[in-house]
Amino acid sequence: MKALVYQGGGAKSWTDRPDPEIADATDAIIRVDAVTICGTDLHILKGDVPAVTPGRILGHEAVGTIVEVGDAVSTLLPGDRVVASCISACGRCEYCRSTRYGQCRGGGGWILGHTSDGVQAEYARIPFADLSAFKLPDGLAADKAVLLADILPTSYEVGVLNGHVKPGDTVVIVGAGPIGLAAIITAKLFSPSRIIAVEPAPVRREAAKLFGADVTVAPGEEAVEMVAACTTDGADVVMEAVGTPAAFEMCTRLVRPGGHVANIGVHGAPATLHLEDLWIRDVTITTGLVDTSTTPTLLRMLAAGQFDVDHMITHRFELGDIETAYDTFAHASGTGALKVLLTA
Amino acid sequence: MKALVYQGGGAKSWTDRPDPEIADATDAIIRVDAVTICGTDLHILKGDVPAVTPGRILGHEAVGTIVEVGDAVSTLLPGDRVVASCISACGRCEYCRSTRYGQCRGGGGWILGHTSDGVQAEYARIPFADLSAFKLPDGLAADKAVLLADILPTSYEVGVLNGHVKPGDTVVIVGAGPIGLAAIITAKLFSPSRIIAVEPAPVRREAAKLFGADVTVAPGEEAVEMVAACTTDGADVVMEAVGTPAAFEMCTRLVRPGGHVANIGVHGAPATLHLEDLWIRDVTITTGLVDTSTTPTLLRMLAAGQFDVDHMITHRFELGDIETAYDTFAHASGTGALKVLLTA
Amino acid sequence: MKALVYQGGGAKSWTDRPDPEIADATDAIIRVDAVTICGTDLHILKGDVPAVTPGRILGHEAVGTIVEVGDAVSTLLPGDRVVASCISACGRCEYCRSTRYGQCRGGGGWILGHTSDGVQAEYARIPFADLSAFKLPDGLAADKAVLLADILPTSYEVGVLNGHVKPGDTVVIVGAGPIGLAAIITAKLFSPSRIIAVEPAPVRREAAKLFGADVTVAPGEEAVEMVAACTTDGADVVMEAVGTPAAFEMCTRLVRPGGHVANIGVHGAPATLHLEDLWIRDVTITTGLVDTSTTPTLLRMLAAGQFDVDHMITHRFELGDIETAYDTFAHASGTGALKVLLTA
Amino acid sequence: MKALVYQGGGAKSWTDRPDPEIADATDAIIRVDAVTICGTDLHILKGDVPAVTPGRILGHEAVGTIVEVGDAVSTLLPGDRVVASCISACGRCEYCRSTRYGQCRGGGGWILGHTSDGVQAEYARIPFADLSAFKLPDGLAADKAVLLADILPTSYEVGVLNGHVKPGDTVVIVGAGPIGLAAIITAKLFSPSRIIAVEPAPVRREAAKLFGADVTVAPGEEAVEMVAACTTDGADVVMEAVGTPAAFEMCTRLVRPGGHVANIGVHGAPATLHLEDLWIRDVTITTGLVDTSTTPTLLRMLAAGQFDVDHMITHRFELGDIETAYDTFAHASGTGALKVLLTA
Repeated sequence: MKALVYQGGGAKSWTDRPDPEIADATDAIIRVDAVTICGTDLHILKGDVPAVTPGRILGHEAVGTIVEVGDAVSTLLPGDRVVASCISACGRCEYCRSTRYGQCRGGGGWILGHTSDGVQAEYARIPFADLSAFKLPDGLAADKAVLLADILPTSYEVGVLNGHVKPGDTVVIVGAGPIGLAAIITAKLFSPSRIIAVEPAPVRREAAKLFGADVTVAPGEEAVEMVAACTTDGADVVMEAVGTPAAFEMCTRLVRPGGHVANIGVHGAPATLHLEDLWIRDVTITTGLVDTSTTPTLLRMLAAGQFDVDHMITHRFELGDIETAYDTFAHASGTGALKVLLTA
Repeated sequence: MKALVYQGGGAKSWTDRPDPEIADATDAIIRVDAVTICGTDLHILKGDVPAVTPGRILGHEAVGTIVEVGDAVSTLLPGDRVVASCISACGRCEYCRSTRYGQCRGGGGWILGHTSDGVQAEYARIPFADLSAFKLPDGLAADKAVLLADILPTSYEVGVLNGHVKPGDTVVIVGAGPIGLAAIITAKLFSPSRIIAVEPAPVRREAAKLFGADVTVAPGEEAVEMVAACTTDGADVVMEAVGTPAAFEMCTRLVRPGGHVANIGVHGAPATLHLEDLWIRDVTITTGLVDTSTTPTLLRMLAAGQFDVDHMITHRFELGDIETAYDTFAHASGTGALKVLLTA
Repeated sequence: MKALVYQGGGAKSWTDRPDPEIADATDAIIRVDAVTICGTDLHILKGDVPAVTPGRILGHEAVGTIVEVGDAVSTLLPGDRVVASCISACGRCEYCRSTRYGQCRGGGGWILGHTSDGVQAEYARIPFADLSAFKLPDGLAADKAVLLADILPTSYEVGVLNGHVKPGDTVVIVGAGPIGLAAIITAKLFSPSRIIAVEPAPVRREAAKLFGADVTVAPGEEAVEMVAACTTDGADVVMEAVGTPAAFEMCTRLVRPGGHVANIGVHGAPATLHLEDLWIRDVTITTGLVDTSTTPTLLRMLAAGQFDVDHMITHRFELGDIETAYDTFAHASGTGALKVLLTA
Repeated sequence: MKALVYQGGGAKSWTDRPDPEIADATDAIIRVDAVTICGTDLHILKGDVPAVTPGRILGHEAVGTIVEVGDAVSTLLPGDRVVASCISACGRCEYCRSTRYGQCRGGGGWILGHTSDGVQAEYARIPFADLSAFKLPDGLAADKAVLLADILPTSYEVGVLNGHVKPGDTVVIVGAGPIGLAAIITAKLFSPSRIIAVEPAPVRREAAKLFGADVTVAPGEEAVEMVAACTTDGADVVMEAVGTPAAFEMCTRLVRPGGHVANIGVHGAPATLHLEDLWIRDVTITTGLVDTSTTPTLLRMLAAGQFDVDHMITHRFELGDIETAYDTFAHASGTGALKVLLTA
C-alpha cells in the first residue's frame, strides 16, 4: 500500500509500505476512507516530537472501513465504517478505568502516527479497536465524521468541559485556528451568553464570527480592554487554543476571580504564571490531553445535526495528493486553510 | 484603648487609639480575648502590601467577646464569644451569593488589618458581623478557636478541598510552616493513604511528623525521588504552602497525571509554569483566598475533638507584649515559633 | 390600597387593605406593575395549604417598582424596577449560606402570599429586599420578567440543574403545564438531543411542541413505548412536573440505569417507589423547592434574548380584574390558559 | 471438583461438578482459597431470584489463586492471588466506559452465582478477568481481602460515596448487618462528626458500637427522637442497609433538607415515598448496584491498615462444610453470625 512516511529531518514521502496486519487479538485493520492533517503533524515534521522516529507512518485523524478484526474484537465487524480515534485505550489500566484514556498506561494513549504507525495511508492497523474506533451511523458523511477523530472531542473535553462552561457565561477563546473554532462550536452546547474570540489574523477572526463567536478582537491590550468592557470582573472561562507562552499568559489576565482557564494548546516552552496576582483570585487552570471519552455522544449529536461543522474543511484532495495537501495546510496564512481533507 | 498600629516603613507600635464604634448597622464591637500574628502581618511590615497605610491597626486572627452590636445584627448578642474571621462578607454581592466571601465586592473580603482596622488591639470593630463572626460553643478554649480565624479554614478550603483530597490518596504538602501543618491536620479528615511533607528545616520536618505526616523530606531532587519511590506516577494532590516560585514549580513536578496542585502560599513573584511538560498531563492547578465558608463546620469538629491543634501554639504572651511576640514570630527559625498567641 | 385577600373556605376578594409599610430595616416596598397567578394559589384557595390563614394577601410572582427601602437595604433604590422573587432569603442562616434560600431558617423561604402578605395587590412589602428582589435592566418588559419570579428558576433549578441535563441527553418531561413548558425552555440551554413531553391534554402537547419538545406523547403505556423506541435503556433525565403519584411513578419507569428523576411537582399525596425494581438501577431522585439562586443569570439571559418566553402569557387583565383572571386560570382546560398576567 | 449447586426449590448440595475451563479468551480460572456467603445467596435459596436456575453453582465473594488465563488476559498470571469481584466488567459497553460496571451490557454485571456459575466451589471461571479480578499484595490475608469482593465496595460506593458523606456530617445507617457495619467502617474515612446506627437487634447494636458507631438506637419513634436530639434539622446522610419498605421510609424521615438518602438494601417490595412532605425538602435519593470501581483503592487501604475489618468474620469453616456454614449464616439472630468464612 501507499502511506505517508516520516523520513526524519523534516522530510516525508508518500511511498510504498507493506499492508498492515493484525498483530494483537484486539486489533482491527481499516481501509482509510478520509483523513486529515493535524497541526501536530507539522510539529513532528519540524522534529519537535522526538518520539516519532524515521520510518513512521504519520496521521491520527481518520474515518475508515473495517476490513479485518482480531479474535478479541467483539463490537466491530468487517464492513463497519468507523472513526479511528486519535487516542487508543487498553481499557484495563488504572487510567483507562477512570476514563482517562489519553493517559493509558497499557499500550494506548496517543500512539497513532506517534509511537505506532498512523492513518495517513491506504490501510491502517487500529490497536484496541473496541475502545478506539467508533462505528458511524448510516448517512453520516466521512468528511464530517473525521472531525470526531481529534478536534471536536479535544475542544469539547479539554476546553469546554474542563473549563466548566455554563449557561450565561462569558467565554473567551484565545486562538481561532481549527481547535479554537471547534471550541466555539462545542462551547455553544452550553448556551454561554457571549463568546469572545481573540485572534491576530483578520481572516480567522472572520472565521470565528462564522462559527459563532459574538465578539472578535486582536490579542494584547485590545483584548484586555474588550473583556473588561464586556464583563464586570473578567471572563468566566478562558481557553488557550494557541500553544504559546504569550497566549497562555493573556488567558490568565482575562479570567475573572473564581473562573477557569482551560489550556488546549500544545506547548513547546514554559510560560510565566503570575502568581503574585493570581494567588488571591480563586483561579482554576487545567491542562489535558483528550481522552475521546465523549466521542460517542458527539457522534450522535453530529449525526443528528445538533451542531454544524460545514465550514471546517476548507480544502479537499485525493489521498495520493497528500504532499500537496500538507503544503496547503502548512501555509494556512496564505491559503486560508482550516482543515484539509484527503479521501481515498 | 491600646492597639498595634502600623507606622509605615517597617515600623509598628503598641499605642493609644480611640475605642472603635459602631459605624454601620451590621457592625459589632468585640473585646479581644486572644489574637495571633500571621505571616502576612510580617509582609505588611516589610511594605509588601501597599494597601496597608500608616495608621492602620494590624491583625486579622482573633477570638473576642461581643460588647455591642449594630441595629441590623440579628444573630449575635453582647456577651457572645466569637471567632472574628479573617474574611468579612457583605452577604449580598454576586460573590457572596456564590459563597466566595473572600472575593466579596460589597465592602468585605480580607479587610481586617488590611484596608480597615484590625484585631491586634484591645477592642475591634467587626463589619458584617452576622456573616463574619462565629459564635463559640461553651467550653471551646480561645487558644484553639483562634486558629479558626484563618489558618484552619485556609488550609482546608484552599488546600484540601480545592485539591480534592480523597481516601487513599498520596498527598504532598510543600512547606511545613503553620499553614502547611494545618493542611496536614485537615487533609487527614479525608483519610489519604500517605502525607509527604516537603520542608527544608529539620525542626519543621519534625513538626510535620508530629502533626501527622507519614513521610518528610527536604525539597529538591530528594523530594522528587521520594515521591517517585512512593507512587507510580506522582502524587494525587500537591499543596503549595510556601509562597515561592521554587516551591510552586516543585509542586508541578510532583503531581501525577490527572492530579491536583492546590496553591495556598502567598506569592510576591511570578513562577515558571512548565507547560511544555504539563499541557499533556491533565493537571488541575488552583489558587484561592480563603472564604471561611467552612468555619462553622470546622468549629463544630474542633469543639468535638475531631482534630487536634494542641501543638500549633508554641509561644504565649500578654497582649501588651505584642512587640516581643512579633520578634519571636519573625525569627521562627531561631525560636521554633509556629503560632504565637496573645491574650488579654 | 386594593389587594386580593384570602377569606378562608375557598373565598377571596379584591378589597381594601392598608398600604404596606417598612417593618424591618431590610424591607422594601414596591408598587406592583405586573403579577401572575400560580397553580399554588389555586391550592391555597382549596384549603390545601393550611399555613395560609384568612386575611392573607395572596401572590408570590410579581414585577414592581421600588417606592421605599429600609435603612439596611444597600443595593436597591426607589424607582428601581425589580422582580420580586417567590423566595425571600435572610442571607445569614445555615441554609442561606449554602445557597439553599428556599430552606431559609431566618425568616425567609417561601413566605410571600403564604405566611406573609403577598404581591397580588397594588403595593407589597418585600422582606430581605437585597437578596429577594432583582433589579431589571432597562428595556426588559415586565410581562417577560415576571416569569423570573417563580417558574423559570423553578424549572431550571429543580428540574434542569437537579436533573443534571447534559448535551446529548434524552430528557423526558412529564406534564406540559406552565412549569413543564418552562422546563422545556430551560432544558434546551444544555443542548439535549431529544426532549419528550408526556401530557394527556392534546392542546398542551401542542404547546409543548411550540416550546421546543421534539416528541410529545400521552401518559401511560404509550409513553413507556415511546421512550423505549427512542432510547436504548430509558431516558437520561426525567422531570415530574405534575404533582401526582401516577406521574411520579411513570417517571421512575422511564429513567435509564444511572439516570436522574427530578421532581418539580407539588405533591399532596404519597407515591409508590418501586424499590424492588429500582434498587439495582443506579437511579438518583431529587426533590426541591426553588432557591432562586439562578435568577440573576436567567435575568441576564432573558434580557439578552437567549431564550424565548413569548407564548407563556396567554391572557392579560388589569389588576382590578384579578377575580376574572383567577377564573380564567382555574379553568385552563377550557380557556387554554398557561400564565395569566395582571398589570397595574 | 466439588461445588455448592442450587437444586431449585430451596435446595442446595455440595456435590461433584466438572472443573471449569476457559470459555472466552478474557477468562481466568481460579482455585478458590476463601469464600463467603452473602445475604443474597439466602434470597436465591428462597427462590426470590428467578434468574438463578437449578444447576447453578452459587457464590460471588471469593479470594483465589489464578491457575490458568485466557489468551486475551494481559494483567494476571497463574499463581497470582486475586479477589474475584462480585461484578464482572466487559470494559467495552457504554456503561463500563462510564465506570458503571454493575450495569454492564456486554455480558458482565452481577453474573457470578447468578446467571453464570459462581465461586462457592473448589475452582471457578472468572469472566473478563482483567477487569474483574484484583491482584492482592503479598501479605494481605485472604480472610480480610475476601470482604473486598462485595460488602466493602458496596457499602462504600452505594452508601458512602452516593450519600456524599463529608467531614462534619451526621450520618445515620439504618441496619447493622454486615453491609451496615461495612458502611460504618467506610463512612469513617470521611470523618463524619457522628454515626448513628439504627438497628432492632441489641447484639447488632453492640456490633455497631464495636465497628465505630457513636450512637445506636432501635428503629421507630425512638430513632426519630434520637436524630432530632442530635441534629437541628435531621441527618446529612441516611443509608438504608436493610431492604424493607419500613426501613426505607424511616430513612426519608430522618434526613435533613438538602440531605442524601442512599439506598444500599436489596428490596423485594415497593416502599411508600412521602412526596407530600419531601417535595419541598431538597432531598436526594440514590439507589445502586455496586460497580467495584473502588476496589483497587480499598485494597490498598486495607493492605495498609487504614481501616479494620477484624470483627467482620465471626465464623470459619472448611470449604467442605459449607452446608453447615449456610445454616450458621441463615440463623444469624441465634448464632450472632456476621460474615461466615470458608477456606480451602
